[in-house]
Amino acid sequence: MTFKLVFLPPHRDHTRVWAERLAETVRDVRVAVPETLEDVRMEIADADAAFGTIPPELLALAEKLRWLQAPAAAPAAGYYYPELVRHPVVVTNFRGIFNDHIAAHIMAFVLAFARGMHRYIPRQMRQEWKPDEEGGMLHLPESTALIIGVGGIGAETARLCAAFGIRVIGVDVSREDLPDGVSEMHAPEALDGLLPGADFVIMTIPHTPQTEGMMGARRFTLMKPSAFLINIGRGMTVRLHDLDAALRGGEIGGAGLDVYEVEPLPPEHPLWTAPNVLLTPHVAGHGPYLDERRFEIITENARRFATGQPLINIVDKANWF
Amino acid sequence: MTFKLVFLPPHRDHTRVWAERLAETVRDVRVAVPETLEDVRMEIADADAAFGTIPPELLALAEKLRWLQAPAAAPAAGYYYPELVRHPVVVTNFRGIFNDHIAAHIMAFVLAFARGMHRYIPRQMRQEWKPDEEGGMLHLPESTALIIGVGGIGAETARLCAAFGIRVIGVDVSREDLPDGVSEMHAPEALDGLLPGADFVIMTIPHTPQTEGMMGARRFTLMKPSAFLINIGRGMTVRLHDLDAALRGGEIGGAGLDVYEVEPLPPEHPLWTAPNVLLTPHVAGHGPYLDERRFEIITENARRFATGQPLINIVDKANWF
Repeated sequence: MTFKLVFLPPHRDHTRVWAERLAETVRDVRVAVPETLEDVRMEIADADAAFGTIPPELLALAEKLRWLQAPAAAPAAGYYYPELVRHPVVVTNFRGIFNDHIAAHIMAFVLAFARGMHRYIPRQMRQEWKPDEEGGMLHLPESTALIIGVGGIGAETARLCAAFGIRVIGVDVSREDLPDGVSEMHAPEALDGLLPGADFVIMTIPHTPQTEGMMGARRFTLMKPSAFLINIGRGMTVRLHDLDAALRGGEIGGAGLDVYEVEPLPPEHPLWTAPNVLLTPHVAGHGPYLDERRFEIITENARRFATGQPLINIVDKANWF
Repeated sequence: MTFKLVFLPPHRDHTRVWAERLAETVRDVRVAVPETLEDVRMEIADADAAFGTIPPELLALAEKLRWLQAPAAAPAAGYYYPELVRHPVVVTNFRGIFNDHIAAHIMAFVLAFARGMHRYIPRQMRQEWKPDEEGGMLHLPESTALIIGVGGIGAETARLCAAFGIRVIGVDVSREDLPDGVSEMHAPEALDGLLPGADFVIMTIPHTPQTEGMMGARRFTLMKPSAFLINIGRGMTVRLHDLDAALRGGEIGGAGLDVYEVEPLPPEHPLWTAPNVLLTPHVAGHGPYLDERRFEIITENARRFATGQPLINIVDKANWF
């Protein structure tokens, strides 16, 4: 079946290349690359598919649209506005492309905390030799990681945690199977009961109405005073003011963050100087092959769309109601 | 067979407890705990075995001594003086007790470097939000770790590296089998040819005449400019002056050290402020159960000695010739 795929502006160098390569490699696709919103208005009415971000006024014109490829692994919450959620179009995203990079980043935080690097590296900066007592490390084979959000990143993290003997408990809104390395899987309702048993609370979830502010003052009091919070998902799921207070009050043992309620984290933010924090500037997904992986997902879905097969990386829009 | 085991002074609280527990739990052992060197002189002449550090003048009197349990996993080089190396006594050590703790510490360094923590944590200390470019991380499935010294620690490190897809090449003075996760094993003579291919050079070796200063100026020039040196073995194997120069000159990518030629590393040492270093104060072996594990080795060897079975953790004294 021949179908029409519109690349929505704004374009970038690599998305223009993708449009060309897609037209060359996938049979049956007609690719349009309109430059202006006026041009989009012309092209979108008979479009079967689109890549990019579509504003409500253009979606209203897209009567034939049945597939929308989002330009991110986890588009910001505003991407899914009510009209799009209600629209029959199937939305796919780029999830999966960061699994290995982000899981390694999570493990860098896990290992750093287990081996006291959050204490020793600041001492190094002060040129201070000060070993703690011999028993003062977290013994991974006796520790538990609670992974909130067991998609591709969470599952890869579980596999790596298990290699260190860490017991892994998963919390997920829909997943019920036990990926390699996960010993128990629970629904989000079980979270409060699971937090007191965790040495690492690892958050890999997107920002939805349900996940916004999921970790705040009340839940920090449920964590062990020795436990570490790790968030590499979306910043809006953790209340930074509450986290800062929990760290300074010794309610939790530390935090490793890559995402924040406000990005960039402003220089005057108190979290920078909170005790026992390791902060990276939204780089957990960094690594090679990302654009190649994005293009592979577009190509695979274009092939599937043309032949009527189910798309990959479909988004459950119900999570944004 | 009844035998006599002398606990050599100086004693510590836990070694006194060990002496008592050993006498209670192992049949056929007579334990002596002399307090002074004069007392040791009386006890050592008919001793079959000893625990601790024995000076040359006492060894000369120990005509019956057939087993010496060293009080460390890798006693400092001075422990093995020429008379002890030539003496027929079998020396055993505590190796193995740190395998899990030190392998986790090594992986904390490996992951930290792979994920750019050596750049991001100093920026965090300056409250600076500065992400590097998206591709600027070390992709572990395309990296190679050269593990110098594949004993218990090296083998456990290899297993963990393999879980991240890291290719592991081992260098060892005697081992020829391929432990889980190791793809190639070489003799030390191959080192110069292997260094240019490594992204991580991980040193787990003891301090012997052969290993002293093993990594110095010449070998740093053989490493990739992007490669990381990790030393958790013995400080005397790495020339710190040369390392500091290699780091400042960009000859290597970074270094994670837990042991040093001089310990404590003096506050004025230039290495503290060298670029891309992560320094911990000889704590890689820290973790729980160490004294329990030490006592288990003494007990196991006492049982074996009494029944004429081969001892565990025997030291190849030839390495100290």
